[in-house]
Amino acid sequence: MKDSANAFVALFDFEGAAEGPLAGLTFGAKDIYDIAGHVTGCGSPEWGRTHPVPDRTAAPVAALLAAGARLVGKTHTDEIAYSLMGVNAHYGTPLNTAAPDRVPGGSSSGSAAAVAAGLVEIGLGSDTGGSVRLPASFCGIYGLRTTHGRLSMDGTMPLAPSFDTVGWFARDLGTLDRVAAAAGLPVAGEVPGRLLLPVDGWSHASAATVAAVASALARLQAAHGPVVPVTLAPEGLGKWFEAFRVGQAAEIWQTHGSWVEREQPQFGPGIADRFKMAASITPAAWTEARQVRATARTRLADLLADGAILVLPTGPGPAPFRSADNATLDSFRTHALHMLCPAGLAGLPQVSIPAGTVDGAPVGMSLVAAAGHDRTLLAVARAV
Amino acid sequence: MKDSANAFVALFDFEGAAEGPLAGLTFGAKDIYDIAGHVTGCGSPEWGRTHPVPDRTAAPVAALLAAGARLVGKTHTDEIAYSLMGVNAHYGTPLNTAAPDRVPGGSSSGSAAAVAAGLVEIGLGSDTGGSVRLPASFCGIYGLRTTHGRLSMDGTMPLAPSFDTVGWFARDLGTLDRVAAAAGLPVAGEVPGRLLLPVDGWSHASAATVAAVASALARLQAAHGPVVPVTLAPEGLGKWFEAFRVGQAAEIWQTHGSWVEREQPQFGPGIADRFKMAASITPAAWTEARQVRATARTRLADLLADGAILVLPTGPGPAPFRSADNATLDSFRTHALHMLCPAGLAGLPQVSIPAGTVDGAPVGMSLVAAAGHDRTLLAVARAV
Repeated sequence: MKDSANAFVALFDFEGAAEGPLAGLTFGAKDIYDIAGHVTGCGSPEWGRTHPVPDRTAAPVAALLAAGARLVGKTHTDEIAYSLMGVNAHYGTPLNTAAPDRVPGGSSSGSAAAVAAGLVEIGLGSDTGGSVRLPASFCGIYGLRTTHGRLSMDGTMPLAPSFDTVGWFARDLGTLDRVAAAAGLPVAGEVPGRLLLPVDGWSHASAATVAAVASALARLQAAHGPVVPVTLAPEGLGKWFEAFRVGQAAEIWQTHGSWVEREQPQFGPGIADRFKMAASITPAAWTEARQVRATARTRLADLLADGAILVLPTGPGPAPFRSADNATLDSFRTHALHMLCPAGLAGLPQVSIPAGTVDGAPVGMSLVAAAGHDRTLLAVARAV
Repeated sequence: MKDSANAFVALFDFEGAAEGPLAGLTFGAKDIYDIAGHVTGCGSPEWGRTHPVPDRTAAPVAALLAAGARLVGKTHTDEIAYSLMGVNAHYGTPLNTAAPDRVPGGSSSGSAAAVAAGLVEIGLGSDTGGSVRLPASFCGIYGLRTTHGRLSMDGTMPLAPSFDTVGWFARDLGTLDRVAAAAGLPVAGEVPGRLLLPVDGWSHASAATVAAVASALARLQAAHGPVVPVTLAPEGLGKWFEAFRVGQAAEIWQTHGSWVEREQPQFGPGIADRFKMAASITPAAWTEARQVRATARTRLADLLADGAILVLPTGPGPAPFRSADNATLDSFRTHALHMLCPAGLAGLPQVSIPAGTVDGAPVGMSLVAAAGHDRTLLAVARAV
């Protein structure tokens, strides 16, 4: 295999189990997952230099190998996985084959790019704030963020542990469901309940994105009945976004602050700013963020009881151009996190489905369900 | 008839035509419509004192009389009709019989209150920024803002002429449609096109209001098919709101500025502030507002082509309490005008339909169609 998409940190070949449900499929693993005998880089030159070479393989990688999939390489990630765009100041930006002049999204940038380019069938990523969902949307592929805490992440670089979860990319739903099944996620349950349209989430998407996703939604409504408009955050979605931003940053600093202070890594510009922000979160702000998070969890559990499913655009628009300036990227990120934070705050599964194009570039539609209903989402997505 | 709702400025009795489609029905007319031989007060003590007693009756009143309805009195209005709450510093606040501790809405406050209290079958109001739609929502009755420019307003105090239009209240759709027909509005055309859900409009409503209106929407979807989410304002609904605020204020100052400067009326507090703001609009700001307005008109014409109909909550929530402070009212008004300004900017018809209650007080759902489709809205509303 030739890495035509700058998706891989390193290529190699780990055979999976001889027999298994994923036999014959190949995958790339985001370079935050340990592979025994290989440096784990986490998108940062300093990280690999200051951490021992792992002697065991991370659980999410081992699970795919045990199911028969073949590991063909480690894939690029945004630096310490703390970004959403797929731009890495040290290793470059993987190619978004669906929109070559645009970013691929991140932080699971290489796994998304490799799947979109047809280099592998499965991309193993991770999702804290949207790192599977957003690149899936940008690259025109399927991406599943799994329910938080259901799958072991042993051997994975943590980012913000109460948000971090495993996710995968694929070019079709059948493959994604085979992977989810092989990982041990339970089969889809009964017919889902009503579709909910969260108006506060939709209001952060561009008009053209709303129009594109509306077409995909029409197919979903034809199969599952009309949507019911709802408000996600009675107190304002901005409050949830802020609770996400603060809570994530506080955990990131708790996880990596001492390493950052000790090693003083030369971060890329956006990453450096975010670590500085993370270092400045006060205990009082973190406490407040946790209180808002608890409210959001309860609210979403209520909304999603009885099998209801949220439907909304995955992000505010197609991927930003590779040439976009920082102000454009910051504004995009803020809108995106308003849309992505509900599942993150509540640990919910979310699938991003290719929903059409805007200015020739892909946009995704997302489905979110109650915890544990990962494969129900995949079943519902078939109607699109 | 006893004015149990403080709805009337003056009671009298003008028989309508002996025969006609509205024979047997009574109505009250907002005190901005001239009635021959009676002072027109416009909610302001100074207005009546400084204007001659009219010698003819305004066209919208004459039309109802000619159709056989009986005029039983002039109804209260907010001062110079420049408010949405129904609070008049000089004449008090009409009673909202559906929620007695809350305001009735305005500026067509008395006509709405009289209909809600069962004192008349028809309330004649006017709508510039929401003065029929919002009180209808607050009082739990039907209210139609007619297409701008279709019905003569001769003999009416103008407010912002390019926005001002006739509207009516009724307790049932049948009566409202009889009135619209009698006024000469054309019969409903072919089956309407798809229902559009403007996510940027909905995002200004409270969560409880969204939930209440969603139930009414479900009945509409059962009859007319699933909604299609859309964005009203690609440039941001805030820009439309601002264009409305500035454009309306500029026209109001153009219409009434010289009277205000000459007579120095003792306005109620909120009204005084708004006239001061109106006096300060610069020509450049007005020009920009007109440009945004032109864009909004084109956008809405595109969205509503082929018979499409917008569906959204009429206002952000139920009527504010009579005891609400100014900051609460200002915030409510701003959210309300985001939701109400599209029809105002584009001169479109809009009907507000009782849609349920929030905390025991009514909220309305609105339908908006292309110009001239007033009675189509009433036909579609029957499904609710």
